[in-house]
Amino acid sequence: MRFSSDPSPRKAGTAELALLQQIRARAARPGSNALTLGIGDDCALLQLRRGEEAAVTTDLSIAGRHFRLDWHPPESIGHRTLARGLSDLAAMGARPVAAFLSLGLPAELTKSRGKTTPFSRQSTYSHLPWIDAFLGGLVALADTHRTTLAGGDLAESPLPVADIVLVGAVRRGRALLRSAARPGDLVYVTGSLGGAAAALQLLSDMAANPRPAPSNLKRLRIPGRIQAQLAPHLFPQPRIAQGLYLVRHGLGAAAIDLSDGLSTDLAHICEESDVSAEIDSSLLPIHPTATLEQALNGGEDYELLFTAKPSSRIPRSIAGVRITHIGRILRSGPNRPAITLLTPTGPQSLQASGWQHFS
Amino acid sequence: MRFSSDPSPRKAGTAELALLQQIRARAARPGSNALTLGIGDDCALLQLRRGEEAAVTTDLSIAGRHFRLDWHPPESIGHRTLARGLSDLAAMGARPVAAFLSLGLPAELTKSRGKTTPFSRQSTYSHLPWIDAFLGGLVALADTHRTTLAGGDLAESPLPVADIVLVGAVRRGRALLRSAARPGDLVYVTGSLGGAAAALQLLSDMAANPRPAPSNLKRLRIPGRIQAQLAPHLFPQPRIAQGLYLVRHGLGAAAIDLSDGLSTDLAHICEESDVSAEIDSSLLPIHPTATLEQALNGGEDYELLFTAKPSSRIPRSIAGVRITHIGRILRSGPNRPAITLLTPTGPQSLQASGWQHFS
Repeated sequence: MRFSSDPSPRKAGTAELALLQQIRARAARPGSNALTLGIGDDCALLQLRRGEEAAVTTDLSIAGRHFRLDWHPPESIGHRTLARGLSDLAAMGARPVAAFLSLGLPAELTKSRGKTTPFSRQSTYSHLPWIDAFLGGLVALADTHRTTLAGGDLAESPLPVADIVLVGAVRRGRALLRSAARPGDLVYVTGSLGGAAAALQLLSDMAANPRPAPSNLKRLRIPGRIQAQLAPHLFPQPRIAQGLYLVRHGLGAAAIDLSDGLSTDLAHICEESDVSAEIDSSLLPIHPTATLEQALNGGEDYELLFTAKPSSRIPRSIAGVRITHIGRILRSGPNRPAITLLTPTGPQSLQASGWQHFS
Repeated sequence: MRFSSDPSPRKAGTAELALLQQIRARAARPGSNALTLGIGDDCALLQLRRGEEAAVTTDLSIAGRHFRLDWHPPESIGHRTLARGLSDLAAMGARPVAAFLSLGLPAELTKSRGKTTPFSRQSTYSHLPWIDAFLGGLVALADTHRTTLAGGDLAESPLPVADIVLVGAVRRGRALLRSAARPGDLVYVTGSLGGAAAALQLLSDMAANPRPAPSNLKRLRIPGRIQAQLAPHLFPQPRIAQGLYLVRHGLGAAAIDLSDGLSTDLAHICEESDVSAEIDSSLLPIHPTATLEQALNGGEDYELLFTAKPSSRIPRSIAGVRITHIGRILRSGPNRPAITLLTPTGPQSLQASGWQHFS
C-alpha cells in the first residue's frame, strides 16, 4: 500500500484508508517549494536550484533495536526517525528538501481505540492514536526544518519498522565531507556531549525488571518532572542551521554527525581523511547530566563534529548553539593511535567504542 | 550500522564487517555519472543535468508479505526489491540515477555457512551466501538499467525487511502523471498481463502442505524446467526503456505501473484524472499461462499502462516489448462505473480487486 495511491476498498480496511488519509493530510502542509509533485503519483518530483546537487540519505529504525514501543512515546519515535535523517543532511551542510517514510506496522497500531468523544481530544485523527502521535512528532520536526513529507510506503509488519529517506540540496562542490580533514585543522563540536546516553541510562533504570518486551504496547509512564532530563534522548535536535552556516561561510572542512559517539565518529573522519586526531578531555562540553565516558562513547547526541583551518574564525555559537574547540587533526603515522585523548594523567589512546543501540 | 561507515571492530562482528565490505565492493561498479559521491559519507551526492527534476520513490518489502524466504531464491528477492522501485521510475518516464537500500536481516542470514573450499564457488563472498545471492540479483538488475547502489543502511532485524529508494531524473515538466488522462485518450499496456499472478499460483501450488513458515530458511526446490514459467513472478522486468521512449517522443499522457493489477491501477488513473475508462477484454494481451481474471486483477506484472491522444502514433513495440491498445478514456459521470469491461456477453463494471500479496 503506497501513500501515493488510494487503495480500493477491497484492498484496504477502513483503518488503513483512514491511515492513508491521515498521512496525506499531514503531508499536505506548506513545505519546500522545491517539491513540484508530492503524494499522489508513482514518484514525487523535486526541483533543485541551479548549481545545487542533491544529498540523499536513508536510515532504518527497527523496534527493539532503535526504539522500544514500551519505552518511547510515539511522538519520540516519530521525531527520532526523522532526526536521524536530518542529522545526516546537517553533517553535509545540506538544506532539507523532502522526506520519504516507509512504515511497517502491526495491525494493532493502525486500529481504532474505539469511539472517542468530540471533546476528548482536539485531533481529527484520534481514532488512530499511536499513528497520530508518531506522525505528530515527525511532522513537528519536519516543519521546524521546512521539510515536506513527500511520499513513502506503508505495509503491515509484525515488527514495527520505519525507514526514513531525506533529500537535501547543497551548492555543488561545497558539501562538508568526512574525507576533508587535514593535519593542522582544529576540531570542534556543537552543543554538548553525552546527554542522550545519560538520558537513555535513566530511561533504562526506570524500566522495571523484568522488562516488558520491546514490542509491548503497555508503555513506561514518564513523570513530567524528568521529561526535560530525557529530552536529549527522546527529542534530539539535528544541527541543520549550524551545518548550513559552515557551508555558507566556507568555514568547515570535514564534518560528521555524532550518531554513534565521539570516539567512533571521529575515527570515521580519521579513516576517510587518512589523518589522526588529538582530543583534550578538559575541553569537552560534557552535558551536565553525563559522565566523561558517556560524552566520549555515548551515541545519538546528533551534534556535529567538524574540522576547520586554524585561520578560520569560528563563532562561539551558531544559531544559539555553542561551538566548542576540543582538539586538533594530526598526521597519521604507524606508531600513533588514530585518536589520542589528552587527560590530566597524560595522553591515552582513545578506542572507538560507540553506541550499541538496544542490542 | 551504515553502509557509509566502516564500524569499529568493537561495534561489529567479523560477519558484519565482511557484509559491509561486500556491499561496498558490489556498489563500486561503474554507474551513472550523476553520482558525485557514493558510499563512504553521511549522504550520497547526486548531480542532475540542467533542466531535469528528480523523481524519488520508496518501496518497503517485508518477509511474509512481499516475499517468503522459503519460496523465493535470494537472487529473486534482491531483483524484486529493486524492480519495484525501478518500475515507479518507469511509470514517470524517468531515467534511473541511483538506488539506496535499507536492509534489516536476522543474524543467521549474515553469518558464514562455515569454511568453503577455494574450488567450491567462484565468488569472493561465498562465506555469506544468502546476502551474496540477494545482492547478486539486485546488482544485476541495477547494472541492466545503469543504476548505482549509492548508499543505504543495515540493521539486525528478527524479521527480514528491505526498503528500496530510487532517485531518477526527468526533463522538467515532462514526467508522465497519473492525473494527465483525458476523455478520448486511448489506453495501452506494454508486454503481457497476468504472467506474474499465474507464476505465483504455480509457486504456491508447489509449496507442500503444511507450508513451511515464511521466514524458514529451508527453501522450496524449484526444478529447472519450470524456472522459465516462474520468471514473470521471480524476475519481473521494469519497463524503463518504454517509459523513457514515451517521454522522449512526447507520446504518453498519463501512466502508471501495473504493480497492484490492471483493475486497481487503472482505477488510480481514473481517480487522479477524474475520468472513467473502457477496456475491451478481447484486446487484452493475456500471458499464455494466465487466465483473464489474472490478467485483470493479478499484481506485480510491472508492465506500464499509459494513455495517449488518438492522434499519437504509438509503435507496435518499444525496445523489443509489444505495445497493445486495450481501451479508451471516457468522461466520468454519476451513472457510469469508473471502469467498464467490454466482454462477449456485454459490458460489465470492472471492480478494482488487485493484489493482496501474501496477506
